[in-house]
Amino acid sequence: MDYAARQRHLQAALQPSKLDFLLVTHLPNVRYLCGFTGSAAALLISERGSIFFTDGRYITQSKAEVESAKIVIARKSPAIAAAEWLAGSLRRTSKPRHVGIQSETITAGLRDRVAALLAGKARLRPAPPMVERARMVKDADEVALIRRAVELGASLFRVARKTIRPGATELQVAAAMEYAARRAGAEGMSFSTIIASGKRSALPHGRASAARIPSRGFVVCDFGVILAGYCSDRTRTVHVGRATRGARDLYDAVSEAQQAAIGAVRPHATAAEVDEAARRVLRRRKLARYFTHSTGHGLGLEVHEAPRLAAGQQQKLEPGMVITIEPGAYLPGRQGVRIEDVVVVTSSGCEVLSPENKEFIEL
Amino acid sequence: MDYAARQRHLQAALQPSKLDFLLVTHLPNVRYLCGFTGSAAALLISERGSIFFTDGRYITQSKAEVESAKIVIARKSPAIAAAEWLAGSLRRTSKPRHVGIQSETITAGLRDRVAALLAGKARLRPAPPMVERARMVKDADEVALIRRAVELGASLFRVARKTIRPGATELQVAAAMEYAARRAGAEGMSFSTIIASGKRSALPHGRASAARIPSRGFVVCDFGVILAGYCSDRTRTVHVGRATRGARDLYDAVSEAQQAAIGAVRPHATAAEVDEAARRVLRRRKLARYFTHSTGHGLGLEVHEAPRLAAGQQQKLEPGMVITIEPGAYLPGRQGVRIEDVVVVTSSGCEVLSPENKEFIEL
Repeated sequence: MDYAARQRHLQAALQPSKLDFLLVTHLPNVRYLCGFTGSAAALLISERGSIFFTDGRYITQSKAEVESAKIVIARKSPAIAAAEWLAGSLRRTSKPRHVGIQSETITAGLRDRVAALLAGKARLRPAPPMVERARMVKDADEVALIRRAVELGASLFRVARKTIRPGATELQVAAAMEYAARRAGAEGMSFSTIIASGKRSALPHGRASAARIPSRGFVVCDFGVILAGYCSDRTRTVHVGRATRGARDLYDAVSEAQQAAIGAVRPHATAAEVDEAARRVLRRRKLARYFTHSTGHGLGLEVHEAPRLAAGQQQKLEPGMVITIEPGAYLPGRQGVRIEDVVVVTSSGCEVLSPENKEFIEL
Repeated sequence: MDYAARQRHLQAALQPSKLDFLLVTHLPNVRYLCGFTGSAAALLISERGSIFFTDGRYITQSKAEVESAKIVIARKSPAIAAAEWLAGSLRRTSKPRHVGIQSETITAGLRDRVAALLAGKARLRPAPPMVERARMVKDADEVALIRRAVELGASLFRVARKTIRPGATELQVAAAMEYAARRAGAEGMSFSTIIASGKRSALPHGRASAARIPSRGFVVCDFGVILAGYCSDRTRTVHVGRATRGARDLYDAVSEAQQAAIGAVRPHATAAEVDEAARRVLRRRKLARYFTHSTGHGLGLEVHEAPRLAAGQQQKLEPGMVITIEPGAYLPGRQGVRIEDVVVVTSSGCEVLSPENKEFIEL
């Protein structure tokens, strides 16, 4: 990863945003900018360079990982240490400076403490989402890592198919998948594995539970891994036992909606247009009101990042963006279906990563 | 869980804190107060009752889980929905109200949007950590759940001992432990499993990596499960191969420090006193500067919660508090040791949950 280039890109954006400094406190942003993977960090960026703050647990790790920034080991929370350092370095100047903060991730309490430490020397300002915008468009190294994560993630569905049977618990299925992921080198799952069977398939976020898989009905499997820092996210829905006509129709409708949304992904299309493409299909099938979430989201160092594919989102797609396409339909108390892939926006449309296993599967 | 009682306790604390409402946005706090386990929620509490806000993904789940609150399904982020609801309900009054917010967990951006929606009708105020304080002291139901989580967590060390051998990767060890946890019903791990072998044992937060366990050296295993919402947290350090005198001395020192800290846990002792008890032992052994983190933390619905056992922390311990005791010593680039247990503060001291396997173990 070219961390120096990422920081330079950001440094160049400070002046146009009328910022003298940017205080980066969101850990995935810190990682994106300097490579640090630990759990306590702040990065203070100015046109003259970057200073990285962490605590005593990360003395060795920060030396090994952090690139293009001076390292300060602090006895306090890294953001507070950064504010104190800045307050000290600004002592001799009288012109108040402007420090951009990441107000969508810093807590209100921390902002207040940072502001108090800088009082009279610098003013805090919500920075535009500069790092998040940069992160939306992945470079070739990142796409390669996401591809590897998605391929590993996809392989877990084979484990699910072998494990899903009437009487098995949802947790057993999740356990087998997660074990396979870890053995294959995953750092962890990108979110709590969803295995939602029978009536629970109507819960869009039905995390694997002690419930036993019934002899007939859908099983929604939504799962992702973290590999080398990058996330995968994938949903496949299978049917246990013989499916009714209604179940097949529901599956077909969601499948068609997903295809329509994938077909709408191309440069200059807005996130809202992709969402609407899926919603239009479900509306025609009288299922629109059962599609109760957005169509997808960006994916990278975080499992949910910009852009968000939902009504009203005017963000235009660009080549290199990586997004999920995951429409679903959930009939409360009865059954639900979701199908999800990760796609990379290309110059002419998109590439679906590991698109297999989307046909209707009866186990 | 007696959610109604927890909410009443909080309602009674509003007036003394000069608050008309409390907007609870931190998800573990929402869960603590009304039982909801999903990933999007806000709870608005007043003396007249509570209103719970979530989004369309949680229609069915919120009905099944939420107790003692009216449920509102919103199309927006739950906190924004709560603010709009409140702005609407306050329309006819002229006296500005005070709404407490959880400023240590709400983001600065969200606070600003909530404040804007309530402008002229209500003022936001950082609420005292009322919910966090209530959560510090566990009731009998919670202690029973934590005990179960700790017992399940403790059983994973048997898996680690069987899996740790020269040439195995740290990830393989973590995978086997996590698989056992899931099969036993864990909802997940309470944090990314730490398996830090050889020189990596000197990294206090050395998450399991692709590194192979060397033929000689320490392996720090720090791991926890989530079971029925409650976390466990445990560290055991084993030695692979024949230990040097120096390695044994390091282990003995940390072990003695842990015993000293456990011995200092009793009602009315401060968190700082417990921390100092561990630090004093390591100081005498000339290891104080290698103990680079705090001695422990509260444990419950979150793996890190109040109180924090560190220098300067004047919080007094009370019966029912559940805390970790986890001193360590890390010689950079060489080796490290940490030993951690969960203890429940009792009327006369503390009970160590699952205290076994702390003797020096050579594998």
